[in-house]
Amino acid sequence: AHLVTLPGDGIGPEVTAAAVDVLKHVAAHHGHDFRFSEHAIGGAAIDATGEPLPDATREACLAADAVLLGAVGGPKWSDPNAKVRPEQGLLALRAALGVFANLRPLKVHPRLAERSPLKTERLKDVDFVVVRELTGGAYFGAKTRDKERATDECAYTVAEIERVLRRGFELASQRGRHLTSVDKANVLETSRLWRHTAEQVARDYPEVHLEHQLVDSMAMLMLTQPSRYDVIVTENLFGDILTDEAAALAGSLGLLPSASLGDHHGGLYEPIHGSAPDIAGQDAANPLGAIASAALLLRHALGLEAEAAVVEAAVEHVVEHGPWTRDLGGTATTSQVRDAVIAALD
Amino acid sequence: AHLVTLPGDGIGPEVTAAAVDVLKHVAAHHGHDFRFSEHAIGGAAIDATGEPLPDATREACLAADAVLLGAVGGPKWSDPNAKVRPEQGLLALRAALGVFANLRPLKVHPRLAERSPLKTERLKDVDFVVVRELTGGAYFGAKTRDKERATDECAYTVAEIERVLRRGFELASQRGRHLTSVDKANVLETSRLWRHTAEQVARDYPEVHLEHQLVDSMAMLMLTQPSRYDVIVTENLFGDILTDEAAALAGSLGLLPSASLGDHHGGLYEPIHGSAPDIAGQDAANPLGAIASAALLLRHALGLEAEAAVVEAAVEHVVEHGPWTRDLGGTATTSQVRDAVIAALD
Ligand SMILES: CC(C)[C@H](C(=O)O)[C@@H](O)C(=O)O
Ligand SMILES: CC(C)[C@H](C(=O)O)[C@@H](O)C(=O)O
Repeated sequence: AHLVTLPGDGIGPEVTAAAVDVLKHVAAHHGHDFRFSEHAIGGAAIDATGEPLPDATREACLAADAVLLGAVGGPKWSDPNAKVRPEQGLLALRAALGVFANLRPLKVHPRLAERSPLKTERLKDVDFVVVRELTGGAYFGAKTRDKERATDECAYTVAEIERVLRRGFELASQRGRHLTSVDKANVLETSRLWRHTAEQVARDYPEVHLEHQLVDSMAMLMLTQPSRYDVIVTENLFGDILTDEAAALAGSLGLLPSASLGDHHGGLYEPIHGSAPDIAGQDAANPLGAIASAALLLRHALGLEAEAAVVEAAVEHVVEHGPWTRDLGGTATTSQVRDAVIAALD
Repeated sequence: AHLVTLPGDGIGPEVTAAAVDVLKHVAAHHGHDFRFSEHAIGGAAIDATGEPLPDATREACLAADAVLLGAVGGPKWSDPNAKVRPEQGLLALRAALGVFANLRPLKVHPRLAERSPLKTERLKDVDFVVVRELTGGAYFGAKTRDKERATDECAYTVAEIERVLRRGFELASQRGRHLTSVDKANVLETSRLWRHTAEQVARDYPEVHLEHQLVDSMAMLMLTQPSRYDVIVTENLFGDILTDEAAALAGSLGLLPSASLGDHHGGLYEPIHGSAPDIAGQDAANPLGAIASAALLLRHALGLEAEAAVVEAAVEHVVEHGPWTRDLGGTATTSQVRDAVIAALD
């Protein structure tokens, strides 16, 4: 398999390198041939080429079996009025790869429950996946701006809504058979189309129970009854907000992976944490989110379920027994955590 | 003063009646002349007139010194594809009154900390107000819908952004002198205009520290560091989501008030809880949110700060010592709680 890595900015390079080491170990151990090539994205790409997503990067990603990304952005490029911003690279890449379904699984490891802002008893049995639509909505709609006024259009077609909901239903039918579709159908036209489409798609999955929630209620229910949920599907901007809220429950962002999947590409895999410029270059970042993302890559892009499970078990083992980086209350380095994961693989 | 009450649906009539009783007691005790007139809104108005905001209601509200609302909506009128929906009445009323700034204060009473999903130590010193823009954005923008596609436009002018931010800065300068402006400036044009305008307005309030947060980060920070915030100002849809998230922290929705303020009207006051049809008509609803909203009415619409403080102290007293309705773990009725508040007023 041919894998492109996009280390990006801040701690991105460190955590990506750790995940690549784990993938190399898996390849050697299980007799796979993984070729890696590294490309520039985000702030690093702006500095090198003036573009947040250089053509060479786009082409390489399109040709790859899967893409593993670190993180993009940082204070150096953070002026929101700048013409070129690191995030544009990520948005353009999502669009170019057609990865319309962003999966963010959330489970709270018992050892991390004490670090979560939520009371421990509420975290028991929390095990859900948010499926966020990733290539539509206000992120990609028409925009205008003059001195006095600005607009952003949120647009969705039935086809766009349907394909991401299908991913959600497929997932739900392999998991807890419960799907929560989140919208703001009492106010937005796109949400009414969303809800209508969800009802239609649900007919093809009679084994899955479909429930609708308004996005404001969902923001509340995620805190008061987080263990009720199985698969939550929503549009791009609502998903952006709800996945960060969900991530806060986990007690540390450092552990959480994501997979962005399309129909014609193996997908884009990245930890959900940001570029954390304050600890960049110090061998202090938690590589477990990137390594868990690599596990999702093994599963979803390469169909290597057994290998994915082995990596996830190794990550679990390290969360349980250490060594831990600072975000988990330990003093270990990125490299020590990587080595511990690799040791736990065998 | 002439006050219009809009009981609305579900538990709305019960909690509004309790708040009116408290206001009458305040009027008698402090020598004020409050006249009340009741009008229909929401589902009740649809049933009576076919319209969620009958003309008579709109006119009465426009002529009043302030409006006290219960709640609107319920399963009876909940089909999102229905032509006429209760929420439309509320949205049309907000627009008609020009109440562009929705204030939702949040403090967590120590007695309620155990009911909050958040760990008790995180709730210490939580004391913030969300100021949500209420008459603009995607709620009121152009919408389209055909069989295949739907759109919602989010539009903001500088003037709309500026006036709500000014409210936020005024409030912050009387409180903790810290204002957090929430946007999605890395993606949305309206958010970039918002951020730019916030920078401009901030010059007039040098005593207030302005900070920007992205809405996704804010959804996380509200859980991980809720005590850091003082005044949070944001656009309509982000505010809808974040205020419900914030409300979940409080341990019960039943207590939380809101005030919607404009430039040319005394304002619209309502508890943030919904119509709770499951307990409607049972004398079981918690009236404290409606009563606390009446206190905000005394303060903001009528300038009766002392009277507002007396009502708030009485509410605090009942939260502390009971009687409590079911949502707070007690068995008291709505009427018993109302009576206890009135007893505590003197
Ligand atoms: C960096 C930013 C554009 C991005 C988004 O809003 O999608 C990020 O917040 C995310 O969730 O991946
Ligand atoms: C009923 C609904 C239209 C309303 C809104 O979204 O504004 C409600 O959620 C609120 O927050 O007051």
